[in-house]
Amino acid sequence: MNKIITVGREFGSGGRELGRRLAEELGVQYYDKEIISEIAKNMSLSEDYVRSVVESKPHRLFPITIGHSFSAVPDYQLMQMQGIYMAQTEIIHELADKGDCVIIGRCADFILKDKKPFRLFVHADMDSRIKRCIERQQEGEDLTVEKTRRQIIAIDKDRASYYNDFTGQKWGDKRYYDLCINTTGFVIKEIVPYIAKLF
Amino acid sequence: MNKIITVGREFGSGGRELGRRLAEELGVQYYDKEIISEIAKNMSLSEDYVRSVVESKPHRLFPITIGHSFSAVPDYQLMQMQGIYMAQTEIIHELADKGDCVIIGRCADFILKDKKPFRLFVHADMDSRIKRCIERQQEGEDLTVEKTRRQIIAIDKDRASYYNDFTGQKWGDKRYYDLCINTTGFVIKEIVPYIAKLF
Repeated sequence: MNKIITVGREFGSGGRELGRRLAEELGVQYYDKEIISEIAKNMSLSEDYVRSVVESKPHRLFPITIGHSFSAVPDYQLMQMQGIYMAQTEIIHELADKGDCVIIGRCADFILKDKKPFRLFVHADMDSRIKRCIERQQEGEDLTVEKTRRQIIAIDKDRASYYNDFTGQKWGDKRYYDLCINTTGFVIKEIVPYIAKLF
Repeated sequence: MNKIITVGREFGSGGRELGRRLAEELGVQYYDKEIISEIAKNMSLSEDYVRSVVESKPHRLFPITIGHSFSAVPDYQLMQMQGIYMAQTEIIHELADKGDCVIIGRCADFILKDKKPFRLFVHADMDSRIKRCIERQQEGEDLTVEKTRRQIIAIDKDRASYYNDFTGQKWGDKRYYDLCINTTGFVIKEIVPYIAKLF
Protein backbone atom coordinates (compact mmCIF):
# COMPACT_ATOMS: atom_id res chain seq x y z
CA MET A 1 0.00 0.00 0.00
CA ASN A 2 1.27 3.49 -0.81
CA LYS A 3 2.40 5.81 1.95
CA ILE A 4 -0.15 8.62 2.02
CA ILE A 5 0.12 11.68 4.25
CA THR A 6 -2.91 13.93 4.55
CA VAL A 7 -2.57 17.45 5.93
CA GLY A 8 -5.43 19.34 7.56
CA ARG A 9 -4.53 22.86 8.62
CA GLU A 10 -5.75 26.04 10.20
CA PHE A 11 -5.52 29.03 7.90
CA GLY A 12 -2.23 30.84 8.39
CA SER A 13 -0.61 28.02 10.37
CA GLY A 14 1.80 27.15 7.58
CA GLY A 15 0.23 23.73 7.02
CA ARG A 16 0.44 24.03 3.25
CA GLU A 17 4.12 24.99 3.40
CA LEU A 18 4.77 22.16 5.83
CA GLY A 19 3.04 19.67 3.52
CA ARG A 20 4.90 20.90 0.45
CA ARG A 21 8.28 20.80 2.15
CA LEU A 22 7.51 17.40 3.62
CA ALA A 23 6.74 16.03 0.15
CA GLU A 24 10.01 17.52 -1.17
CA GLU A 25 11.98 16.10 1.75
CA LEU A 26 10.45 12.64 1.25
CA GLY A 27 10.65 12.82 -2.54
CA VAL A 28 6.95 12.05 -2.98
CA GLN A 29 4.15 13.72 -4.94
CA TYR A 30 2.36 16.74 -3.51
CA TYR A 31 -1.28 17.46 -4.29
CA ASP A 32 -3.07 20.64 -3.41
CA LYS A 33 -4.53 22.91 -6.10
CA GLU A 34 -3.80 20.12 -8.58
CA ILE A 35 -7.00 18.41 -7.43
CA ILE A 36 -9.12 21.41 -8.39
CA SER A 37 -7.37 21.67 -11.77
CA GLU A 38 -7.96 17.99 -12.45
CA ILE A 39 -11.68 18.22 -11.66
CA ALA A 40 -12.02 21.36 -13.80
CA LYS A 41 -10.26 19.68 -16.71
CA ASN A 42 -12.29 16.45 -16.47
CA MET A 43 -15.61 18.28 -16.26
CA SER A 44 -14.83 21.20 -18.60
CA LEU A 45 -15.47 23.75 -15.85
CA SER A 46 -13.51 26.78 -14.73
CA GLU A 47 -11.15 26.25 -11.82
CA ASP A 48 -12.79 29.16 -10.00
CA TYR A 49 -16.20 27.55 -10.23
CA VAL A 50 -14.91 24.18 -9.02
CA ARG A 51 -13.16 25.89 -6.12
CA SER A 52 -16.30 27.78 -5.14
CA VAL A 53 -18.20 24.48 -5.05
CA VAL A 54 -15.70 22.33 -3.16
CA GLU A 55 -15.15 25.10 -0.67
CA SER A 56 -18.83 25.63 0.05
CA LYS A 57 -20.86 23.72 2.62
CA PRO A 58 -21.53 20.26 1.22
CA HIS A 59 -24.80 19.66 3.10
CA ARG A 60 -26.57 21.66 0.39
CA LEU A 61 -25.46 19.04 -2.09
CA PHE A 62 -26.68 15.87 -0.48
CA PRO A 63 -29.67 14.19 -2.17
CA ILE A 64 -31.89 14.68 0.85
CA THR A 65 -31.99 18.44 0.27
CA ILE A 66 -32.68 18.25 -3.46
CA GLY A 67 -36.11 19.58 -4.28
CA HIS A 68 -36.63 21.10 -0.84
CA SER A 69 -38.58 24.26 -1.27
CA PHE A 70 -36.06 26.33 0.68
CA SER A 71 -33.21 25.46 -1.67
CA ALA A 72 -31.96 28.56 -3.46
CA VAL A 73 -30.14 26.53 -6.10
CA PRO A 74 -31.89 24.95 -9.11
CA ASP A 75 -31.85 21.14 -9.17
CA TYR A 76 -29.66 20.79 -12.27
CA GLN A 77 -27.03 22.92 -10.58
CA LEU A 78 -27.22 20.83 -7.41
CA MET A 79 -26.64 17.73 -9.51
CA GLN A 80 -23.63 19.33 -11.13
CA MET A 81 -22.29 20.20 -7.68
CA GLN A 82 -22.77 16.62 -6.58
CA GLY A 83 -20.92 15.56 -9.71
CA ILE A 84 -18.01 17.78 -8.68
CA TYR A 85 -17.98 16.15 -5.25
CA MET A 86 -17.97 12.69 -6.75
CA ALA A 87 -15.18 13.71 -9.10
CA GLN A 88 -13.14 15.04 -6.18
CA THR A 89 -13.51 11.77 -4.27
CA GLU A 90 -12.60 9.76 -7.34
CA ILE A 91 -9.57 11.90 -8.18
CA ILE A 92 -8.26 11.74 -4.61
CA HIS A 93 -8.49 7.94 -4.75
CA GLU A 94 -6.72 7.87 -8.13
CA LEU A 95 -3.90 10.10 -6.87
CA ALA A 96 -3.47 7.96 -3.75
CA ASP A 97 -3.29 4.83 -5.91
CA LYS A 98 -0.59 6.33 -8.13
CA GLY A 99 2.12 6.35 -5.45
CA ASP A 100 3.33 7.81 -2.15
CA CYS A 101 2.06 11.34 -1.71
CA VAL A 102 1.12 14.28 0.49
CA ILE A 103 -2.43 15.61 0.01
CA ILE A 104 -3.48 18.99 1.41
CA GLY A 105 -7.03 19.42 2.75
CA ARG A 106 -10.11 18.25 0.82
CA CYS A 107 -11.14 15.80 3.57
CA ALA A 108 -8.60 13.40 2.06
CA ASP A 109 -7.99 11.89 5.51
CA PHE A 110 -11.64 10.81 5.55
CA ILE A 111 -12.02 9.94 1.86
CA LEU A 112 -8.96 7.69 2.02
CA LYS A 113 -9.60 6.17 5.43
CA ASP A 114 -9.58 2.60 4.09
CA LYS A 115 -6.06 3.24 2.79
CA LYS A 116 -4.92 4.17 6.30
CA PRO A 117 -3.24 7.50 5.53
CA PHE A 118 -1.04 9.19 8.13
CA ARG A 119 -3.24 12.11 9.20
CA LEU A 120 -1.50 15.35 10.12
CA PHE A 121 -3.19 18.47 11.44
CA VAL A 122 -1.22 21.71 11.56
CA HIS A 123 -2.26 24.58 13.81
CA ALA A 124 -0.84 27.67 15.52
CA ASP A 125 -1.97 30.41 17.84
CA MET A 126 -3.86 33.38 16.43
CA ASP A 127 -1.04 35.90 16.81
CA SER A 128 1.46 33.86 14.87
CA ARG A 129 -1.09 33.12 12.16
CA ILE A 130 -1.86 36.82 11.78
CA LYS A 131 1.86 37.59 11.62
CA ARG A 132 2.40 34.93 8.96
CA CYS A 133 -0.50 36.15 6.81
CA ILE A 134 0.62 39.78 6.99
CA GLU A 135 4.22 38.89 6.16
CA ARG A 136 3.09 36.94 3.13
CA GLN A 137 0.37 39.22 1.82
CA GLN A 138 0.37 39.98 -1.87
CA GLU A 139 0.84 43.43 -3.28
CA GLY A 140 -2.27 45.56 -2.85
CA GLU A 141 -3.83 43.34 -0.17
CA ASP A 142 -3.25 45.94 2.51
CA LEU A 143 -3.95 43.65 5.47
CA THR A 144 -4.39 45.06 8.94
CA VAL A 145 -4.26 42.91 12.08
CA GLU A 146 -8.03 43.14 12.53
CA LYS A 147 -8.83 42.43 8.90
CA THR A 148 -6.50 39.42 8.95
CA ARG A 149 -8.00 38.09 12.17
CA ARG A 150 -11.50 38.30 10.68
CA GLN A 151 -10.31 36.59 7.49
CA ILE A 152 -8.67 33.75 9.46
CA ILE A 153 -11.79 33.20 11.56
CA ALA A 154 -14.04 33.23 8.48
CA ILE A 155 -11.90 30.82 6.46
CA ASP A 156 -11.49 28.41 9.38
CA LYS A 157 -15.23 28.52 9.98
CA ASP A 158 -15.80 27.48 6.37
CA ARG A 159 -13.17 24.75 6.56
CA ALA A 160 -14.62 23.37 9.77
CA SER A 161 -18.15 23.49 8.46
CA TYR A 162 -17.14 21.81 5.18
CA TYR A 163 -15.17 19.10 6.95
CA ASN A 164 -17.75 18.45 9.67
CA ASP A 165 -20.64 18.17 7.21
CA PHE A 166 -18.73 16.00 4.79
CA THR A 167 -17.18 13.61 7.29
CA GLY A 168 -19.45 13.67 10.36
CA GLN A 169 -16.21 14.17 12.32
CA LYS A 170 -14.94 17.33 13.97
CA TRP A 171 -12.38 19.39 12.07
CA GLY A 172 -9.14 19.79 14.04
CA ASP A 173 -10.22 17.45 16.85
CA LYS A 174 -7.03 15.57 17.75
CA ARG A 175 -8.92 12.27 17.95
CA TYR A 176 -9.21 12.22 14.16
CA TYR A 177 -5.52 12.77 13.45
CA ASP A 178 -2.37 10.78 14.09
CA LEU A 179 -0.31 13.86 14.81
CA CYS A 180 -1.24 17.47 15.57
CA ILE A 181 1.63 19.90 15.12
CA ASN A 182 1.60 23.36 16.68
CA THR A 183 3.85 25.55 14.53
CA THR A 184 3.79 28.52 16.95
CA GLY A 185 7.36 29.59 17.58
CA PHE A 186 8.85 27.21 15.01
CA VAL A 187 10.34 27.90 11.59
CA ILE A 188 8.65 25.39 9.29
CA LYS A 189 11.66 24.98 7.01
CA GLU A 190 13.69 23.96 10.07
CA ILE A 191 11.28 21.44 11.56
CA VAL A 192 10.31 19.59 8.38
CA PRO A 193 13.47 17.43 8.14
CA TYR A 194 12.71 16.13 11.66
CA ILE A 195 9.06 15.50 10.91
CA ALA A 196 10.07 13.68 7.73
CA LYS A 197 12.08 11.26 9.87
CA LEU A 198 8.81 10.03 11.36
CA PHE A 199 7.98 8.40 8.01
CA MET B 1 18.85 26.18 28.58
CA ASN B 2 18.15 22.51 29.24
CA LYS B 3 16.02 20.51 26.83
CA ILE B 4 12.86 19.65 28.73
CA ILE B 5 10.09 17.46 27.36
CA THR B 6 6.81 17.34 29.25
CA VAL B 7 4.30 14.57 28.62
CA GLY B 8 0.57 14.91 29.27
CA ARG B 9 -1.39 11.77 28.57
CA GLU B 10 -4.79 10.16 28.58
CA PHE B 11 -5.00 7.17 30.90
CA GLY B 12 -4.23 3.97 29.00
CA SER B 13 -2.80 5.75 25.96
CA GLY B 14 0.74 4.59 26.67
CA GLY B 15 1.96 8.12 27.38
CA ARG B 16 4.04 7.05 30.34
CA GLU B 17 5.72 4.27 28.35
CA LEU B 18 6.31 6.68 25.49
CA GLY B 19 7.90 9.20 27.86
CA ARG B 20 10.10 6.58 29.53
CA ARG B 21 11.29 5.13 26.24
CA LEU B 22 11.87 8.62 24.83
CA ALA B 23 14.07 9.47 27.80
CA GLU B 24 16.03 6.21 27.32
CA GLU B 25 16.39 6.85 23.59
CA LEU B 26 17.63 10.40 24.19
CA GLY B 27 19.77 9.41 27.16
CA VAL B 28 18.16 11.99 29.46
CA GLN B 29 16.61 11.82 32.92
CA TYR B 30 13.05 10.61 33.33
CA TYR B 31 10.82 11.91 36.16
CA ASP B 32 7.47 10.48 37.04
CA LYS B 33 6.80 8.93 40.45
CA GLU B 34 10.18 10.33 41.53
CA ILE B 35 8.51 13.69 42.05
CA ILE B 36 6.07 12.25 44.58
CA SER B 37 8.90 10.44 46.38
CA GLU B 38 10.94 13.62 46.54
CA ILE B 39 8.08 15.64 48.04
CA ALA B 40 7.33 12.87 50.56
CA LYS B 41 10.97 12.72 51.58
CA ASN B 42 11.37 16.51 51.92
CA MET B 43 8.18 16.89 53.95
CA SER B 44 8.37 13.66 55.96
CA LEU B 45 5.03 12.46 54.60
CA SER B 46 3.94 9.12 53.17
CA GLU B 47 4.06 8.81 49.38
CA ASP B 48 0.42 7.70 49.39
CA TYR B 49 -0.67 10.83 51.18
CA VAL B 50 1.31 13.10 48.85
CA ARG B 51 -0.17 11.28 45.86
CA SER B 52 -3.70 11.68 47.19
CA VAL B 53 -3.12 15.43 47.55
CA VAL B 54 -1.43 16.15 44.24
CA GLU B 55 -4.02 14.09 42.40
CA SER B 56 -6.98 15.87 44.00
CA LYS B 57 -8.59 19.03 42.68
CA PRO B 58 -6.31 21.97 43.51
CA HIS B 59 -9.03 24.65 43.70
CA ARG B 60 -9.76 23.48 47.22
CA LEU B 61 -6.26 24.51 48.14
CA PHE B 62 -6.10 28.05 46.96
CA PRO B 63 -6.00 30.74 49.64
CA ILE B 64 -9.30 32.24 48.57
CA THR B 65 -11.18 29.20 49.83
CA ILE B 66 -9.39 28.95 53.16
CA GLY B 67 -11.75 29.64 56.00
CA HIS B 68 -14.87 29.36 53.85
CA SER B 69 -17.57 27.81 55.93
CA PHE B 70 -18.32 25.12 53.36
CA SER B 71 -14.79 23.76 53.45
CA ALA B 72 -14.78 20.20 54.76
CA VAL B 73 -11.05 20.28 55.44
CA PRO B 74 -9.55 21.93 58.54
CA ASP B 75 -7.36 24.97 57.82
CA TYR B 76 -4.10 23.43 59.06
CA GLN B 77 -4.64 20.56 56.63
CA LEU B 78 -5.34 22.97 53.79
CA MET B 79 -2.09 24.73 54.56
CA GLN B 80 -0.21 21.45 54.48
CA MET B 81 -1.82 20.67 51.12
CA GLN B 82 -0.74 24.06 49.83
CA GLY B 83 2.72 23.28 51.10
CA ILE B 84 2.73 20.08 49.07
CA TYR B 85 1.72 22.02 45.99
CA MET B 86 4.47 24.53 46.52
CA ALA B 87 6.95 21.72 47.06
CA GLN B 88 5.86 20.07 43.82
CA THR B 89 6.36 23.29 41.86
CA GLU B 90 9.75 23.82 43.44
CA ILE B 91 10.93 20.27 42.84
CA ILE B 92 9.82 20.34 39.21
CA HIS B 93 11.85 23.54 38.72
CA GLU B 94 14.87 21.95 40.43
CA LEU B 95 14.70 18.84 38.28
CA ALA B 96 14.38 20.92 35.12
CA ASP B 97 17.43 22.96 36.16
CA LYS B 98 19.53 19.83 36.73
CA GLY B 99 19.71 18.82 33.06
CA ASP B 100 17.81 17.59 29.99
CA CYS B 101 14.80 15.51 31.02
CA VAL B 102 11.38 14.07 30.34
CA ILE B 103 8.71 14.86 32.95
CA ILE B 104 5.42 12.96 33.07
CA GLY B 105 2.23 14.81 34.07
CA ARG B 106 2.04 17.12 37.13
CA CYS B 107 1.23 20.18 35.00
CA ALA B 108 4.97 20.44 34.34
CA ASP B 109 4.24 21.98 30.94
CA PHE B 110 2.57 24.88 32.72
CA ILE B 111 4.86 25.09 35.74
CA LEU B 112 7.92 25.26 33.47
CA LYS B 113 6.45 27.51 30.79
CA ASP B 114 9.17 30.12 31.17
CA LYS B 115 11.74 27.44 30.39
CA LYS B 116 9.96 26.71 27.09
CA PRO B 117 9.61 22.94 27.42
CA PHE B 118 8.58 20.84 24.43
CA ARG B 119 5.02 19.90 25.34
CA LEU B 120 3.78 16.48 24.23
CA PHE B 121 0.28 15.14 24.72
CA VAL B 122 -0.36 11.44 24.14
CA HIS B 123 -3.85 10.09 23.45
CA ALA B 124 -5.61 7.13 21.86
CA ASP B 125 -9.13 5.98 21.13
CA MET B 126 -11.15 4.33 23.92
CA ASP B 127 -11.00 0.80 22.50
CA SER B 128 -7.24 0.71 22.26
CA ARG B 129 -6.89 2.21 25.76
CA ILE B 130 -9.21 -0.45 27.20
CA LYS B 131 -7.24 -3.15 25.40
CA ARG B 132 -3.95 -1.79 26.71
CA CYS B 133 -5.21 -1.60 30.32
CA ILE B 134 -6.61 -5.13 30.24
CA GLU B 135 -3.43 -6.57 28.71
CA ARG B 136 -1.35 -4.92 31.42
CA GLN B 137 -3.54 -5.53 34.44
CA GLN B 138 -1.90 -6.83 37.56
CA GLU B 139 -2.70 -10.17 39.10
CA GLY B 140 -6.05 -10.12 40.89
CA GLU B 141 -7.28 -6.92 39.19
CA ASP B 142 -9.88 -8.86 37.21
CA LEU B 143 -10.69 -6.05 34.79
CA THR B 144 -13.70 -6.30 32.48
CA VAL B 145 -14.20 -4.02 29.46
CA GLU B 146 -16.91 -2.06 31.24
CA LYS B 147 -14.99 -1.72 34.48
CA THR B 148 -11.92 -0.54 32.57
CA ARG B 149 -13.91 1.97 30.54
CA ARG B 150 -15.37 3.45 33.74
CA GLN B 151 -11.91 3.58 35.33
CA ILE B 152 -10.43 5.36 32.30
CA ILE B 153 -13.24 7.92 32.24
CA ALA B 154 -12.93 8.56 35.98
CA ILE B 155 -9.13 8.96 35.95
CA ASP B 156 -9.20 11.24 32.93
CA LYS B 157 -11.92 13.33 34.53
CA ASP B 158 -9.67 13.81 37.58
CA ARG B 159 -6.64 14.60 35.44
CA ALA B 160 -8.58 17.13 33.38
CA SER B 161 -10.08 18.74 36.43
CA TYR B 162 -6.71 18.90 38.20
CA TYR B 163 -4.99 20.37 35.15
CA ASN B 164 -7.74 22.84 34.29
CA ASP B 165 -7.99 24.18 37.83
CA PHE B 166 -4.26 24.43 38.29
CA THR B 167 -3.39 26.00 34.95
CA GLY B 168 -6.53 27.78 33.76
CA GLN B 169 -5.91 25.98 30.46
CA LYS B 170 -7.80 23.01 29.01
CA TRP B 171 -6.27 19.57 29.52
CA GLY B 172 -5.60 17.82 26.20
CA ASP B 173 -6.55 20.85 24.10
CA LYS B 174 -4.05 20.81 21.25
CA ARG B 175 -3.50 24.57 21.49
CA TYR B 176 -1.54 24.04 24.70
CA TYR B 177 0.85 21.42 23.32
CA ASP B 178 3.53 21.43 20.65
CA LEU B 179 2.70 17.93 19.50
CA CYS B 180 -0.28 15.65 20.10
CA ILE B 181 0.41 12.02 19.32
CA ASN B 182 -2.39 9.52 18.74
CA THR B 183 -1.00 6.08 19.63
CA THR B 184 -4.02 4.16 18.28
CA GLY B 185 -2.77 1.45 15.98
CA PHE B 186 0.89 2.08 16.77
CA VAL B 187 3.36 0.05 18.81
CA ILE B 188 4.99 2.57 21.13
CA LYS B 189 8.36 0.83 21.19
CA GLU B 190 8.46 1.10 17.39
CA ILE B 191 7.51 4.78 17.07
CA VAL B 192 9.72 6.19 19.85
CA PRO B 193 12.99 6.17 17.86
CA TYR B 194 11.28 8.30 15.20
CA ILE B 195 9.78 10.68 17.72
CA ALA B 196 13.19 10.99 19.37
CA LYS B 197 14.57 12.26 16.06
CA LEU B 198 12.38 15.34 16.47
CA PHE B 199 14.64 16.47 19.29
